Amino acid sequence: MEGRELHEAIMELARRRGFFWPSFEIYGGLRGFYTYGNLGTKLKRNIEKAWRRFFVDPHGFLELDTPVLNPLRVFKASGHLEHFKDVMVECLKCHRVFRADHLIEEEAGLEYVEAMGEEAIRRLLREKRIRCPECGGDLGEPQEFLTMFQTQIGPMSGEPGFARPEAAQGMFLNFKLGFHHARERLPFALAQIGKVMRNEISPRRGLLRLREFTIMELELFFDPQEGQCPWFKEVSDESVKLITEEMEAEGFKEPLEVTLGEAVERGYIKTEWQAYFMGVSKRFITYLGVPPERQRFRAHLPEERSHYSTQTYDHEVYLESWGWIEIAGHAYRTDYDLKAHQKASGVDLTVRRADGSRFLPHVVEPSFGLDRLVYVALEVAYRKRDGRTVLALPRWIAPIQVAVMPLVTRDGLPEKAREIWSQLKDAGLTVEYEEKGSIGKRYARQDEIGTPIAVTVDYQTLEDDTVTLRDRDSWRQVRQEASRLPELLRSYINGERGFDELGRPL
Amino acid sequence: MEGRELHEAIMELARRRGFFWPSFEIYGGLRGFYTYGNLGTKLKRNIEKAWRRFFVDPHGFLELDTPVLNPLRVFKASGHLEHFKDVMVECLKCHRVFRADHLIEEEAGLEYVEAMGEEAIRRLLREKRIRCPECGGDLGEPQEFLTMFQTQIGPMSGEPGFARPEAAQGMFLNFKLGFHHARERLPFALAQIGKVMRNEISPRRGLLRLREFTIMELELFFDPQEGQCPWFKEVSDESVKLITEEMEAEGFKEPLEVTLGEAVERGYIKTEWQAYFMGVSKRFITYLGVPPERQRFRAHLPEERSHYSTQTYDHEVYLESWGWIEIAGHAYRTDYDLKAHQKASGVDLTVRRADGSRFLPHVVEPSFGLDRLVYVALEVAYRKRDGRTVLALPRWIAPIQVAVMPLVTRDGLPEKAREIWSQLKDAGLTVEYEEKGSIGKRYARQDEIGTPIAVTVDYQTLEDDTVTLRDRDSWRQVRQEASRLPELLRSYINGERGFDELGRPL
Repeated sequence: MEGRELHEAIMELARRRGFFWPSFEIYGGLRGFYTYGNLGTKLKRNIEKAWRRFFVDPHGFLELDTPVLNPLRVFKASGHLEHFKDVMVECLKCHRVFRADHLIEEEAGLEYVEAMGEEAIRRLLREKRIRCPECGGDLGEPQEFLTMFQTQIGPMSGEPGFARPEAAQGMFLNFKLGFHHARERLPFALAQIGKVMRNEISPRRGLLRLREFTIMELELFFDPQEGQCPWFKEVSDESVKLITEEMEAEGFKEPLEVTLGEAVERGYIKTEWQAYFMGVSKRFITYLGVPPERQRFRAHLPEERSHYSTQTYDHEVYLESWGWIEIAGHAYRTDYDLKAHQKASGVDLTVRRADGSRFLPHVVEPSFGLDRLVYVALEVAYRKRDGRTVLALPRWIAPIQVAVMPLVTRDGLPEKAREIWSQLKDAGLTVEYEEKGSIGKRYARQDEIGTPIAVTVDYQTLEDDTVTLRDRDSWRQVRQEASRLPELLRSYINGERGFDELGRPL
Repeated sequence: MEGRELHEAIMELARRRGFFWPSFEIYGGLRGFYTYGNLGTKLKRNIEKAWRRFFVDPHGFLELDTPVLNPLRVFKASGHLEHFKDVMVECLKCHRVFRADHLIEEEAGLEYVEAMGEEAIRRLLREKRIRCPECGGDLGEPQEFLTMFQTQIGPMSGEPGFARPEAAQGMFLNFKLGFHHARERLPFALAQIGKVMRNEISPRRGLLRLREFTIMELELFFDPQEGQCPWFKEVSDESVKLITEEMEAEGFKEPLEVTLGEAVERGYIKTEWQAYFMGVSKRFITYLGVPPERQRFRAHLPEERSHYSTQTYDHEVYLESWGWIEIAGHAYRTDYDLKAHQKASGVDLTVRRADGSRFLPHVVEPSFGLDRLVYVALEVAYRKRDGRTVLALPRWIAPIQVAVMPLVTRDGLPEKAREIWSQLKDAGLTVEYEEKGSIGKRYARQDEIGTPIAVTVDYQTLEDDTVTLRDRDSWRQVRQEASRLPELLRSYINGERGFDELGRPL
């Protein structure tokens, strides 16, 4: 399967089995909002854990949780009030509203139209004679639209407030206190997982463009006079596919393959600090199941870059359904944000070097959209085998890690199975007990939600306390003593041993 | 310490060490918004885990994640648009705005004024001759104020949207699909941890009344003809302190102490389903460190109850700083919400009994404010010992579980300590490495953030591979082989063994 068909198959599976589905269905729906079910919530949490493991924990970075609602002052200072806009265009006949750059891309078959800027968008709408895709009507004049949600904070006249479109500002506002908590030493990073909201003109592609979503963001603060990132050597030999700014400008679509060390040396990536996180990013996305050959980094052209960035590489993943999509942005924000908040607030945000000179730290930022990663993980894991669906998720992110099932629901088998279920739960595993339906149907059900291991309790179990373990991907089975399961399955789920090391083949 | 002094001491500690602090400080602050730092984020996450362990996992309930932003239709149907209001009053001189019931409580020394209703509030403002507490000015006419944040969803005219003031509606909207995912069997529950927002007129008391906060909510769906909760026997012998509706109405302030079994039998609690969760609630809060004698359940009077509830018990905790405060609400919502959404959407939300009859399930709801629990956990754990602060958090929720420190920063001790730090991290523990300052200062620092165990690497470690373990609460020390730490400390943190079982006393 590919293209839309694959996307539809995943959306159907996701809804039926409880990963995710469009919100407000009983009220006819509302575009740009999705609800996560039990499996989706668990999968999301596992991806969050993996992100902490790759980005936050190794160097003891500090996690924050800052408000979604912010007063006007914050986004005025940050530049979002002025820049966080999209161009929209309304059909004069049916009054539907479209995001102009996406409309041009779809109707004229172009790519990255946003990057061309507002003037180009106006020109292309005319030149390509674009009409309403729904009713064929004429389009009105393109207009800018602020894509932040606005509200009032407090009673009476109140104070204008906005839902944040990124978590980063929370880190900049708390930089000084974070620096103190990090014992006043650079480099250090503030990281955050949290909800953000963007009032998209035309949300689309399911989880890929939402009005409310979760972001995983990290701001690394460093001294710009300190060009060397102490951790860079951990990733400098990692090879990556790059489409540099120059290649992008000249229309080269085939990425070049270089090590991160070479990329910095040749100036493709401006700082080791950013290159370090690009290396971690590649490893993280690989850990979620996306093979390296389906990953690349694409530089933004100056017109495409956000107002705060001096270099941005999108980390892109190839989907059979939608082609190359952005799953993370790596931005070199310099001291843009700290400078802006220092100016607007009047609070000194500089720090001191050993020689006594004061400066504003520079910032590199890796920023991931969690919801996109959920979709990517599902699509990349989606397989068909003998007409059945298998979700071959990496076992360390599977929402259910082990299914325990009695062969039949009599003769004490369910009791024994529940006992094992309980022991595995106590060992910290996410375990489901399942007794309904034939054993074949139950295996198929677990394959479809990506459960790596099924443990079956049968009559032999009552005799010798052994059980059958079944592998989701190969459908092979081994036999093992029940008492050894907690230890063995924990290390299997962590990736410390393979299926063959779990027992005697059957 | 008690009263305000204790509150101030905790707020000071929380800010300095990175638990939480008021948001937007560099812009002069904005009432009702708090930011969590590294320790606060971790503490919150541990409380979330504990909540899942007590409420969600034992019966395999389904977790959801639904949007914060909702269209108008949802809150029109749910009754929030009509009922989710507070009475506010403005000073005619300085134009400050106050929540009328709180103003009366503070100025006239009354309690639970909200419960008396709007008319009583108007009357009390007159009778008690209440003036502006800030400038002494006359107060204007009291007015109702909708305490939901409003915005527009989508471009142009858009659609009115509201930030949810509770997570529950997300569960009701998805009841039918959730029922399907739960294999169409009652009872089952949908649970959710998520952000909610309330446009409070006058936020106060730090984390206790916020405009943006996190809720942990569970909706249990059951057949109202099925009076018996199958799990009730697990808690029926649990004794609780109750202030029943009758006692509340007659002004009795001393709670009666009964078992939950008796409370249901005598009709104090209307259903076993609600009583079950009240029992779990008491155990959960005890697990967070609040002794049973500082807990009680207080019934709402009819005027105080939310529009959807036919019986509500607040779970209250006694704080030295603020007296009795609500940390959870246990509401019997009946079929109020499902009926409302069925009517407004036209979608059939009934389910079928074995005998073929169709009905709307009833709902009981335990609902916790996570931020309040964070504050409660800190205040209850706050101790002074020899003039130093010790945060005696239960070790299973402490943000840092183990601190590893070399006695001195030379002779290979830091390398050995880092090795142990790394092993403990790999074993899944939250570990901090610390080498700065004297060992006494480092112990004091860890005591203050509630780290249960400090592991010290000294010269003897280099000889025989043993280390010192120090207990936060007793300051006692034992000696143990470094290689046994991962296993021993994991079971210690889980509460499976005591400090005396960790090694040879020193």
